[in-house]
Amino acid sequence: MTQKELLDAYLNHQLTHKLAGDPPELYEPANYIMNLGGKRIRPLLCLMGNGLFQNDVEKSLPLAHAIELFHNFTLVHDDIIDQAPLRRGQTTVHEKWDLNRAILTGDTILVRAFAQINSLSTTKEIIHQITALFCEMAEDVCRGQQMDVNFENQDSVSQEDYIEMIRLKTSVLLGFSLQSGAIMGGADQSSSELLYKYGLYTGIAFQIMDDHLDAFGGNKFGKQIGGDILTNKKTILLIELLKRANETDSIEIKQLITQTQLDSSQKVKSILAFYEKYEIQAYTNERMASYLELGTKLLDELDCPNSKQSLYDLNGMLSIRRE
Amino acid sequence: MTQKELLDAYLNHQLTHKLAGDPPELYEPANYIMNLGGKRIRPLLCLMGNGLFQNDVEKSLPLAHAIELFHNFTLVHDDIIDQAPLRRGQTTVHEKWDLNRAILTGDTILVRAFAQINSLSTTKEIIHQITALFCEMAEDVCRGQQMDVNFENQDSVSQEDYIEMIRLKTSVLLGFSLQSGAIMGGADQSSSELLYKYGLYTGIAFQIMDDHLDAFGGNKFGKQIGGDILTNKKTILLIELLKRANETDSIEIKQLITQTQLDSSQKVKSILAFYEKYEIQAYTNERMASYLELGTKLLDELDCPNSKQSLYDLNGMLSIRRE
Repeated sequence: MTQKELLDAYLNHQLTHKLAGDPPELYEPANYIMNLGGKRIRPLLCLMGNGLFQNDVEKSLPLAHAIELFHNFTLVHDDIIDQAPLRRGQTTVHEKWDLNRAILTGDTILVRAFAQINSLSTTKEIIHQITALFCEMAEDVCRGQQMDVNFENQDSVSQEDYIEMIRLKTSVLLGFSLQSGAIMGGADQSSSELLYKYGLYTGIAFQIMDDHLDAFGGNKFGKQIGGDILTNKKTILLIELLKRANETDSIEIKQLITQTQLDSSQKVKSILAFYEKYEIQAYTNERMASYLELGTKLLDELDCPNSKQSLYDLNGMLSIRRE
Repeated sequence: MTQKELLDAYLNHQLTHKLAGDPPELYEPANYIMNLGGKRIRPLLCLMGNGLFQNDVEKSLPLAHAIELFHNFTLVHDDIIDQAPLRRGQTTVHEKWDLNRAILTGDTILVRAFAQINSLSTTKEIIHQITALFCEMAEDVCRGQQMDVNFENQDSVSQEDYIEMIRLKTSVLLGFSLQSGAIMGGADQSSSELLYKYGLYTGIAFQIMDDHLDAFGGNKFGKQIGGDILTNKKTILLIELLKRANETDSIEIKQLITQTQLDSSQKVKSILAFYEKYEIQAYTNERMASYLELGTKLLDELDCPNSKQSLYDLNGMLSIRRE
């Protein structure tokens, strides 16, 4: 079996047997969100990190499961905060049930993730080490989400703050997934830290790609073109545009953003024209490439017993749309 | 210094120095709730459990802190769920800021509690053992809160379900506080489990007392008499009343509960009259006494090097109103 097949078999089994208890009102939404599908990229990264250092990745499956639980905890609480009606094409937990259930479901899944890590079949020292990294990562994710919320009420956001936000909100979990898998496989400290940084750079690159594709990706990913433009999301594209625009254009762009009466396709068209005028597509391509290059360099340096090919291939795999 | 003075000095120091970071929007509400005061009964129980087995309780202060962090996590999220405007006489986090901040503040404090336990100055085996118990307790608290939410939409609740709800929502944290403190002090498994059970019985007794005092306590605790009656809370008193009432009275009681036009002092007076008719005061006194007796019996059995007097005195201390 490939790592992905192994992971899917394990998680599908866990989902059927593990997340149960009384009262059922607490566990029904937990099972719902865990069963909504998704590409399970983060737990797969954990197995990939593990597979660099040992051949038998099965002992890391419960860790991969913990990572998927944690990811789903963030989805449930973030969807409340973002007032999102849909997740993976299905009704979000707070919409399907209510706010109360969504808060408690998230809390329960988070606690389960900790419990899962604490039950790993390894030494107490390794559990302790992974738990410490997990706590740090989890708090970082809360910090990133708060930064994202802050941005909505800020007139202007710097590129530095934007990169810091996506590092915290998205990338640290990718970094942790690789790093903790490697630690379970017996990696030394410098190798596991290198993988964490590799995860950060790759995560930032792909978040930029996410913003990029929303504007320039055509509709091949099944998502509405310009969704971020319509919701005035402060993406790296818009931040750079506002930085580059001359005074006259800047006023027009800000009018477009605050305009609520405008026909939506006209709004997208106008902003895209500004992106073209100020060469934003070239800018984001360049930023992406530079982060991917930083990641590749780290990977070149990594010393591990097994093949690194799966990680070199990662970019291609991750370029399938992020959820 | 007494255990309580030691605890207050430590927590006050921690509160000033530890819960900080970027963005400040995340840490401001976290510090606010941790600084609202409260009697710090749970962390004190932890030190008391610890003090039964060793003389120097200082090494358990970070564990006591973790317990107070966890307790505050539950307050922040429960206040959202209960739509509570006030906590300890001050504006609740979701009212003072907003829903988003309250969700993220709770999440952050919960993660900090885990981090704090993981950093304890003891063996990795003990950290592992305490973390496992902490996870179980935390999930139990979520289960209890969900049961409490369920009760609001149920026509009738049995005494068994009510006791199970308060066991999960309130008592398991008291049990964990004593048990984990004892484990840090080197208690063997049977002693630490006995203390957990003692905490459960005592917690249930005092939750019953809480319901009891709301109706029969006079206003010496600075709380409005009959607050639970006015909000139609399904307390142990009301549950027993509905069980005992004859058909005619039962209809009248249910009318009183659903009546929204009624003058509030009249409503309290009428329900109190029914409590008297059906001897509810004697019933709750008896239930309380029986749980306290179960606790005392366990305490008698407990074999530990230091004096158990502080725990025998606990009832007196806890009978100061629960928050």
